[in-house]
Amino acid sequence: MKAYKRKLDIRNGLVDLSHGAGGRAMGQLIDGIFHKAFDNDWLRAGNDQSAFTVPAGRMVMTTDGYVVSPLFFPGGNIGSLAVHGTINDVAMAGATPLYLSASFIIEEGFPLADLARIAETMGEASREAGVPIITGDTKVVERGKADGVFISTAGVGVVPPGLDLRSDAARPGDAVIVSGSIGEHGVAVMSKRENLEFEVDIVSDTAALHGLTAAMVEAGGAALRLMRDPTRGGLAATLNEIANQSKVGFRIDEDGIPMRPEVAAACEFLGLDPLNVANEGRLVAVVAPEGAEMILAAMRNHPLGRDAAIIGHAVADEHCFVQMETSFGGGRIVDWLSGEQLPRIC
Amino acid sequence: MKAYKRKLDIRNGLVDLSHGAGGRAMGQLIDGIFHKAFDNDWLRAGNDQSAFTVPAGRMVMTTDGYVVSPLFFPGGNIGSLAVHGTINDVAMAGATPLYLSASFIIEEGFPLADLARIAETMGEASREAGVPIITGDTKVVERGKADGVFISTAGVGVVPPGLDLRSDAARPGDAVIVSGSIGEHGVAVMSKRENLEFEVDIVSDTAALHGLTAAMVEAGGAALRLMRDPTRGGLAATLNEIANQSKVGFRIDEDGIPMRPEVAAACEFLGLDPLNVANEGRLVAVVAPEGAEMILAAMRNHPLGRDAAIIGHAVADEHCFVQMETSFGGGRIVDWLSGEQLPRIC
Repeated sequence: MKAYKRKLDIRNGLVDLSHGAGGRAMGQLIDGIFHKAFDNDWLRAGNDQSAFTVPAGRMVMTTDGYVVSPLFFPGGNIGSLAVHGTINDVAMAGATPLYLSASFIIEEGFPLADLARIAETMGEASREAGVPIITGDTKVVERGKADGVFISTAGVGVVPPGLDLRSDAARPGDAVIVSGSIGEHGVAVMSKRENLEFEVDIVSDTAALHGLTAAMVEAGGAALRLMRDPTRGGLAATLNEIANQSKVGFRIDEDGIPMRPEVAAACEFLGLDPLNVANEGRLVAVVAPEGAEMILAAMRNHPLGRDAAIIGHAVADEHCFVQMETSFGGGRIVDWLSGEQLPRIC
Repeated sequence: MKAYKRKLDIRNGLVDLSHGAGGRAMGQLIDGIFHKAFDNDWLRAGNDQSAFTVPAGRMVMTTDGYVVSPLFFPGGNIGSLAVHGTINDVAMAGATPLYLSASFIIEEGFPLADLARIAETMGEASREAGVPIITGDTKVVERGKADGVFISTAGVGVVPPGLDLRSDAARPGDAVIVSGSIGEHGVAVMSKRENLEFEVDIVSDTAALHGLTAAMVEAGGAALRLMRDPTRGGLAATLNEIANQSKVGFRIDEDGIPMRPEVAAACEFLGLDPLNVANEGRLVAVVAPEGAEMILAAMRNHPLGRDAAIIGHAVADEHCFVQMETSFGGGRIVDWLSGEQLPRIC
């Protein structure tokens, strides 16, 4: 039925403006790349929106734009980030992610082969997570008016009855748990960007965390105050945000923060503070003291939480400072950055 | 509590990379521009996702990216498009739009004043429509890596029980209704882009159509087969898409298509076929014959459907052609465009 006049040459072809024009070429691009990679009946139905059935209750919605540079990096590409990152923002509410949307803004001249690779990665990530991409949009802008491809995904999910995690819920005495070693995503992207090779491969930690968060909710939902994924700005920004929103301080212990030695070495080499470096498959949980061990144990039983650790606790502090006891025995304030350390890390 | 070191200079300042870095400057931009303009408690809660309660039933989700150039045009700007367009994609399912998300990708050096103006327009459009923007994201890319600002919005809505509009639902004999005069959005953007002045002002038709669609569903939901908004690719692309998805043909009557004479004149001057020109506040409905007059009457009773007209009907046609009887008495095939006539119209 679909008699396209020109075959889509995925191996050698380039995206041109007609692929974003709403006509035949756009239909061909969507069929040949996105429908194929995402592979579900919602998209094939070809509506401008997709329908699904939900039970009565609380839902969450989130969105993120992805502009990572380079588009491909050790351990993933912009497509896996766009799926994992938005699933994680849903999961941080303790919710079960249900569906994703994806909006592509593509620069004219972008290789169709790269677009297909990104779409395939998104399809795989989405299938692996069990969260289908059910609706999307494609725009093309002239050469020099974008940088390869930008992706914005949105996600919706359902919140288990009775659960209400909030960024202002941390209380003095609460434990702070990190789900695993920090800094790997940021260092992987930076090493690719700077063309560095380290002796040990450092790959992005990009991963969908909703399985881990479901296990945490099941183990001790009542004790769980809030969860956040420390992406842009890293652990330092996340803890400072929570501190400001909850009107508490934090005391953390540098020695307690899980970090691979090669990441520590790379950060030293690159002049980065690992606390500011983005993670894409890690979470920070603030937990009432009585539930901390139970939730920690549940995390360690999950493949994405094996290295989970309690790194400190919340304290009463009207200045909302994040203070760290360093490995050398001293203390320092962990501030969030005013400026820009790692542009386009996600 | 929020002791920013530097005041956000909305009048004279420019967006820089720190505004997308996840730290203090980003918080300041979000507070000073987006929270202020969108003005709701979901955003002020400062979570990475927002929660809401829904009844059990069918929902829809949609997304669109907006890359219109120029960003400001007669009758609107990229912000009003980003709100109206996504609301309309929800409304075309006959659904009640509930919430929006917004993802901004901003070029370094973009004036804060322009960003504030766009955000204010979005806030107004969202309040007027009663559909709040409850979650968002901001990224900044280096100068020359984007074009001012791109916005991707996603939307969710609830479908009234029993309603199931589908793009493959058109049947021979169905009436085709257009909600108003066509071509105004595309001509308004093109005239601004080409620095043209026409004797009569042509402004974009950008509008949120969910009030109109609700009236249509109420008047004759059972007779309503499907609705589409003829944006990119215009009426021609929309009718061809429906024809292909429903495996029918269409016969339309050129004289029956509402169009302002100044739009017809401008199209002739610009060398555009008005059937290919984008609309942002119009819809096409395919309606079972017995309900056509009832739905048409309901549309004409709504301010956004005053000029609604039946422009033709679906016919059995294995080639799925859209055929038009022209004003001169002849006939022609209305094809969708293979190439690119109007890049970045939305």
